[in-house]
Formats: sequence, structure tokens, C-alpha cells
Amino acid sequence: MTERPKIAPESGHGLERVIFFSDAVIAIALTLLAIELPVPKGEEWVHQLKDYLGSDYVAFLISFAVIATLWFNHHRMFQQIARLTYGMIWLNILGLFTIVLMPFATKILTGLGDLPAGPIFYSSVMVLWAVVWILMVLTATRQKLWSEDAPATAPGNMIFGASALLVAFGLSIPIAFVNSDWATFFWISAWPISSVGMRIRRSRLERASAQ
Amino acid sequence: MTERPKIAPESGHGLERVIFFSDAVIAIALTLLAIELPVPKGEEWVHQLKDYLGSDYVAFLISFAVIATLWFNHHRMFQQIARLTYGMIWLNILGLFTIVLMPFATKILTGLGDLPAGPIFYSSVMVLWAVVWILMVLTATRQKLWSEDAPATAPGNMIFGASALLVAFGLSIPIAFVNSDWATFFWISAWPISSVGMRIRRSRLERASAQ
Amino acid sequence: MTERPKIAPESGHGLERVIFFSDAVIAIALTLLAIELPVPKGEEWVHQLKDYLGSDYVAFLISFAVIATLWFNHHRMFQQIARLTYGMIWLNILGLFTIVLMPFATKILTGLGDLPAGPIFYSSVMVLWAVVWILMVLTATRQKLWSEDAPATAPGNMIFGASALLVAFGLSIPIAFVNSDWATFFWISAWPISSVGMRIRRSRLERASAQ
Amino acid sequence: MTERPKIAPESGHGLERVIFFSDAVIAIALTLLAIELPVPKGEEWVHQLKDYLGSDYVAFLISFAVIATLWFNHHRMFQQIARLTYGMIWLNILGLFTIVLMPFATKILTGLGDLPAGPIFYSSVMVLWAVVWILMVLTATRQKLWSEDAPATAPGNMIFGASALLVAFGLSIPIAFVNSDWATFFWISAWPISSVGMRIRRSRLERASAQ
Repeated sequence: MTERPKIAPESGHGLERVIFFSDAVIAIALTLLAIELPVPKGEEWVHQLKDYLGSDYVAFLISFAVIATLWFNHHRMFQQIARLTYGMIWLNILGLFTIVLMPFATKILTGLGDLPAGPIFYSSVMVLWAVVWILMVLTATRQKLWSEDAPATAPGNMIFGASALLVAFGLSIPIAFVNSDWATFFWISAWPISSVGMRIRRSRLERASAQ
Repeated sequence: MTERPKIAPESGHGLERVIFFSDAVIAIALTLLAIELPVPKGEEWVHQLKDYLGSDYVAFLISFAVIATLWFNHHRMFQQIARLTYGMIWLNILGLFTIVLMPFATKILTGLGDLPAGPIFYSSVMVLWAVVWILMVLTATRQKLWSEDAPATAPGNMIFGASALLVAFGLSIPIAFVNSDWATFFWISAWPISSVGMRIRRSRLERASAQ
Repeated sequence: MTERPKIAPESGHGLERVIFFSDAVIAIALTLLAIELPVPKGEEWVHQLKDYLGSDYVAFLISFAVIATLWFNHHRMFQQIARLTYGMIWLNILGLFTIVLMPFATKILTGLGDLPAGPIFYSSVMVLWAVVWILMVLTATRQKLWSEDAPATAPGNMIFGASALLVAFGLSIPIAFVNSDWATFFWISAWPISSVGMRIRRSRLERASAQ
Repeated sequence: MTERPKIAPESGHGLERVIFFSDAVIAIALTLLAIELPVPKGEEWVHQLKDYLGSDYVAFLISFAVIATLWFNHHRMFQQIARLTYGMIWLNILGLFTIVLMPFATKILTGLGDLPAGPIFYSSVMVLWAVVWILMVLTATRQKLWSEDAPATAPGNMIFGASALLVAFGLSIPIAFVNSDWATFFWISAWPISSVGMRIRRSRLERASAQ
């Protein structure tokens, strides 16, 4: 007989528990982001607010958008997964490790002022997420974990999206050594670029399948 | 063929996960409210308690009641939703964004003393929630996401309730510029007013359907 | 036709969501208890530890045992509930309000030193829980929310247990005015007393049903 | 008739709630680990980072790996449990007690510097977990709580794994009295040793069953 990967009986109750545990971790990380926000005090609140606007509050907005997007993609991937292996569960735990680091990375982003270390650490966490994500997609394909009604283009789309993330945050690391604000702007610009890229990819795929 | 909105296969397991994720975020925000409460110290606790009674503890009670009410309404709406679109999931995430801001808004409400900025920020968060809520009801109706056994008056009732919230917190913003305590009292008075309004609306609807 | 309480269609998915939301709130309150524990520092840790042992760490152990017991009883009650009304959902939210106050009550228990205010506040929160609990049992009986296979003695047992809690924490309030440490010891002694009382009650009920 | 342990009707919805509650507690403990991480400040961040690397950040990585492993094992055990007794639920709560202590134990590990008290407390928490775990396996076997399709070798494997944990952390306690860093290194070395032990055990069991 052929060698088979060790598949856990995770199709029912076990798959749900892994999803549930991931959701709880992501929900906590998301909610804790706002706990760290500084409260301006007394009469000088307008000046303080201006300082914060340039850093703490913007960092909170970026991190909220990032974690919400990661959750949305996690939700979409696991909608199309039908079973799990222990290897896949551990890859998912590694992904949660990067999520758990996000509130800390957000604090460090502004806590170190203009030093490059803040954006570099933040970008490294995102690069780690993207690498784990690509490994999860490849593992799901190799070990045949996809649901039967998952579209054939889904794995390709997921790898494309994670690669865009990987490039955007990876390229921002050398930029941060020059100027740490530029690195932050680069992340924001990466958003529309990857959206446009995804749209071009989809229309090509549709044209290809129409032929 | 006609254009249709992109409906995600969310009727089963996916809908539950979105509800679950929302619940976790709301539960954390609710529980974190009490973590921020100041502990009076030493012999002077009676005097300190009096100061807090006028601000921190009242703010906690208001925010607990507000978040519990938002959860109750979220629970009632999603009881009558049968399927989801990606647009609806993102609107829900925007709603969770306002919930995540609530513990911070509660801290800022009292942290800035008598300055109008506290109640204004708090009211703005609530106005954003009401706007997102109305958009969710309209989206659910336009994209036919309601369950088949949802009563026909449900969307109208939800928009009516959210509009009452919108008016109460929206009107309190100019009031806060005059006196920030009045703004807080205005919120509390808005509660019975909207309840009476809802009761009148219901009795009219019942009379109309009885004819 | 006869008047009926407004019963929400909560037997399926809605009941689960209410249970889930309660669990998340209780789990967070339980885990946050340990976050507040003071870390002894440097060389003097042995002396500091002795001080804490008499207060902070003991308070943590009591609160962990209390919240775990409340969760266990909540779990047992909702195992035997088959449907929910909006009134019941709001009573449950009021119960969660007392749970959310527990980490704060634990901090105040030791933060005020030997002052009676600490144990009195703690006891008041527990008395509120017991009152809400009895109201929930009475509401479930009056509105016929119990599952068909719930034993007929279940509501009586629940009211008996909550009354024991009510008496133990209620009586500790006047004791706290005399000596705040005695109040804490009184709680601990209430535990075996209520266990013995419950055992006597059960053996009587069994003898009664055997005749 | 024979005496039987009091079995709660936990096979359906009740078992899920116990798992869910456990997951929520573990997820919160895991996410809170990173909240405690110190943020290096200003120009001297490189020097501060070096200090932290030797303590706080390493402690975070160890605790994340430990809690993730405990969750993974909890997940695997409860995959093979079909019903629960009240005794089992209370053992599980005792297990959650050790999880709830983990973020505090992590803080104390580095907060006390080179004093042995940090690693000793951490090891004691892990020893308590291992003891509770072994009691859970024995209880599940004695009260016949295992699912019908659980392999006959599963309880033995679980006790073997927990014993490895017990030995590794138990032995580190006397080591910590000599040198607290050695205790930490000892934990890390225990990991590959127990993995090799488990592999040897498995291959023996397979040879035995092949005969």
C-alpha cells in the first residue's frame, strides 16, 4: 500500500474546535489593540491628540484593518477545508503565533519613535504570516484537505494574495532602514496595488475558463 | 441572466463562525470595561468613591448597558438572517470596530474631565454604530439575506431603533459643546423616549395588520 | 385565547449563542483574575510573598473557586433549559454583569486593606448573583422553559443552592463591619455547610420518592 | 444493581460546552502572554533588547510553545471522549486553573531575576498540570468515558506523555536551587528526549501488535 499522511478524524467536531480556537485568539488580539490606546489628559489634550494622530491612533487603525483582513481570509480558507492533519493544526498554531504578536508589534511600531526597528519588526511578523499561509495552502493541496466543492482556482488565489502581502511587507524592510515613515506609507499603498493585481488575475482566469 | 450579488456559501457553518467571532469580540469588550475601574485606596476611600461615583462608575454602568443592548440587538438580527455575503461580513467587521472602541471611549469619557471631547467621541462611536446597523439592514433586504420565517416588519423595526439611537447620540454632540454633563443625561433620557416610540410604532403596526 | 409570554424562537441556534456568549464572558473574567496578581521583586521576595499570601493570592484562589462554581452551575442549569424568552436573556445578562464585576471585586477585596468596604462589596456582588439566579429559576418555571427530561426536583435544588449562597454572603456583610478577615473566613466555612445541607436535602428527597 | 458513577447527560451539547469553555480560557491565556512583553524605549533599545532576549522574550516563546502543546493534547484527548461526569468536569477546571496561572508564572519566571523561585513556581504549575492530566486519563478509563472508536493504546500514550512532562519539570526543581538558568535549559532539552521516548514506545507497540 501507498504511504499516506497521518490524517486526524477532524472532519466533524475536531475541525470546528480548531476554527473556534483560532477565532477566539484572533478576537482577543483584535480587541486588545484598543486597550493600549493612550488617553490624552487635561487641558493640553488637543496638542497631545495631534502627536498621537501621527502615530498611536494610525497604528491602531492599520492593525485593526490588518487583523480583520487576516481573519476574513482565514474564514474563507477554512470554509473550503474539509479535514485536517496534525501538521496542518501545527501550521495553524504557528499562524496564531503571528496574530498573538500583533498587539505587541503595534505597540513597538510607535514606541520606538523614528527608529527603523518598529516597522521592521512589524513587517517581519507579517512576512512570517504570509509564509505560514502559503505553507498551509500547499499542505492542504498536497494532503488533499480541500472540500469537494472548493473551486479549483481557490488555492492559486490564496497563494497570490499571500505573495502580494509577502512582497509588500518584505520590500518595506529595506525602506524602513532609510525612513521608517516611508515604510508605513508603503504598506498602505500595497493595499490598492494587490487589489488591482487580484482583479487582473481574476479577469484573466475567467477569460481562460470561458474559452 | 440578471446580475446577482456575490453570495458566499455562508448558510451553514460559515454564518455560525461570523456570529461566533462577533460574540467573542463583544464579550471581551464587555468584560474589559470593568478592568479599567479605579480601585480607591487607603483611608480616604470614601471621598475618592464619591469622586468616582460622579464619573468612572457611572460611565462603566452606561457602557455595560450600551454594549449589552447592542449584543442583544445583534443577536436578534442574526436570528433572522439565513445567509451572508462578503459585503455583509465586512459591514459586520465595521460594526465590531465600534464595539472594540467602546472601552477606550469609556475611558476617554471621564479621563478628559469636563471637556466636551469625551462625550463627543463617545457619541460619534455610537453614531457610527447606528449608521453601520442601518446599512446592514438595508443590505440584508437588498441582497435577500433574511430567513424565510423572519416577520415582514423586522427590518423596519430595526431601522426605527437604530434611528432613535442615531438621533439621541447625534443631538448630544452639539449639547456637549455647551455642557458635557448635559450630554450624558441626554443619553439616559433617550432610553425611555425610544422605548415609548417603539411601543407606539408596534401598536400602530398591529392595528394596521388587524384591519 | 390565553395570554402567553413572548417566547423567542431560541430552541436551536439562539439558545446556543446565549450560552456561548455567557461562556466567553465567564472565561475572560476567570483568566483575567490571574493577570492582576502582583509579582514579588528582587531580594525581598520572601517577605513580600508572605504579605501577599495573607491577601492577594488567597483572594485569587477564592475568586477562581467562586467563578468556576458559578460556571459549573450555569452549565448545569442551561443543560436543562430547552427554550428562552427575551426576559430570560436579560436576566442572564444581569447575571453576567455580576461576573464581569468579579475581577474588580477581587482587587477591591485586598486593595482597601482591613477596611470593611472590600468584603462588603464582594459579598454584595455575590448576593446580587444569587438573587438573579433565583429569579432565573422562577422565570424558567413560570414560562415553562425547562427541557422535558429535566428532573422535577431540579428547580428546587437550584433555588436551595442559591439560597445557601445568599445566606452565607448576606450574613457576612454585618460581620465585615466588625472584622473584615472574619467575613472572608465565614465565606470559606459556608462552603462545607451548604454541601452538607444539599446532601441532607437530597437524601430526604430520595427517601420521599422511594415511599 | 451495581453502583455506577453519576454520569451527566453530556454526550451532546454539554460536552461541546465544556470543550468550548476550555478553549476560550486557553485562547485568552495564550494571547495575554504577549501583552506583558516589555517595549524597549528610545535610543538604548539595542542594549535593552539584549537584556530582554536573555529573559522576557525567551520566556514568552517557551510559554507560547507550552500552552500551544497543552491545547493540542487537550484537543486530542477530547476528540476521543464521548461523555463526561461531573468529576471529570471538575478535573478539567483544575487543569484550566494551571493554564490560567501560566501568564503569571511567565512573568514571575523573569521578574525575580536569578532567584530560584521563578523556575520553581513555573515547574510546580507544570507538575500540577501533569498530575491533573494523568488523573483525567485514569478517570476516563475507570468511568468508561472514551469514545468507541478511540484506539486502545490512546490512554497509555497520554499517560506516557504526561509522565515525561512530570519527570522533566519535576527534576528541574532541585536543579533550579543550584542554578536557575540550568533549570530553563533542562526544560528545553526535555522536549527532544520525550519525543524520542514517544517514538521508541510507538515502534514497540507497533511491533507488538504486528506479532
